[in-house]
Amino acid sequence: MKRSIFSVAVILIVLVAIGGSDSLAAQDRYTLTAPNGISFSEVRGYETWHVIAPSRRTDNNELRIILGNTVMVNAYKQGIPENGKPFPDGSIIVKIGWSERQSPVFPAAFEPDVLKRVEFIVKDRKRFPNTSGWGYARFVYDAKTAMFTPYGKDAAFGQECYQCHTIVKAKDFIFTGYPQR
Amino acid sequence: MKRSIFSVAVILIVLVAIGGSDSLAAQDRYTLTAPNGISFSEVRGYETWHVIAPSRRTDNNELRIILGNTVMVNAYKQGIPENGKPFPDGSIIVKIGWSERQSPVFPAAFEPDVLKRVEFIVKDRKRFPNTSGWGYARFVYDAKTAMFTPYGKDAAFGQECYQCHTIVKAKDFIFTGYPQR
Repeated sequence: MKRSIFSVAVILIVLVAIGGSDSLAAQDRYTLTAPNGISFSEVRGYETWHVIAPSRRTDNNELRIILGNTVMVNAYKQGIPENGKPFPDGSIIVKIGWSERQSPVFPAAFEPDVLKRVEFIVKDRKRFPNTSGWGYARFVYDAKTAMFTPYGKDAAFGQECYQCHTIVKAKDFIFTGYPQR
Repeated sequence: MKRSIFSVAVILIVLVAIGGSDSLAAQDRYTLTAPNGISFSEVRGYETWHVIAPSRRTDNNELRIILGNTVMVNAYKQGIPENGKPFPDGSIIVKIGWSERQSPVFPAAFEPDVLKRVEFIVKDRKRFPNTSGWGYARFVYDAKTAMFTPYGKDAAFGQECYQCHTIVKAKDFIFTGYPQR
């Protein structure tokens, strides 16, 4: 009995040594897939992508950064979509949203508080013919469990995103511009 | 007389052909130097640096992104400054500030409007011994003339920045944290 407890203890110590106690429980977000088949892994490494712009939403108290992959950013730099041309297939735009909080030390400043979601839009005209070539994915983050969950119940969830984005059909369905910097 | 007008016209056409009409007038921001000797060129290529966080200021209606060079971002990833250690020499943090505007098509969203300023802080303990190792530079942008101007009248201007940043002395004088993403 003592020996088996000792063995379990040794195994646990080895596991912690290999992975660290946090990473034993950590979720691999890139195994997740949105109901329309878009995988979180399609934006693997998005944390280091080029930033397009910040934005905020007053209706959900959210502060965001919008990032792009190389195809997307190069398209902006060529004048798309202001020049009337569409973003090319392969363009991906990512939004990271945090709840915002007032700075505890500088009341006139507001800053990210808790991570709320990561969402992205992929341009592929063959893959997403019913939504003008754009596929939508959203992964909601729960800070209490440190887990992402795909948003939406079925493949039709992307229609909700698409319907709203038709407001900016003239900008190839993308709200965010590329501001001077 | 006719001939000299023709010559001037030819010269202008050649100049436009060489540089493009915009670039003939365009300012090279990297020739500018702050009153304390910090050159804008010390952050050459900051547009592609890794984004640390967005923020906004209610007192000047400004939406920002804060970017870091590799030294700065690696320090954050190692737990600095939350772990009580200082950022190493070579760390640079850049802030790009825009006035914010309500989205003309989605009233709950606010987005960058006009570029207002680019400012940065450089860590070098030998160079900036009187401000805890940090040197401050701010370049104010005027959208009407498309020109940057160094902020401040003399080398002491950085004291103004430094005095405010002493609020966060415990975080090595840096307000911005590196939020989860």
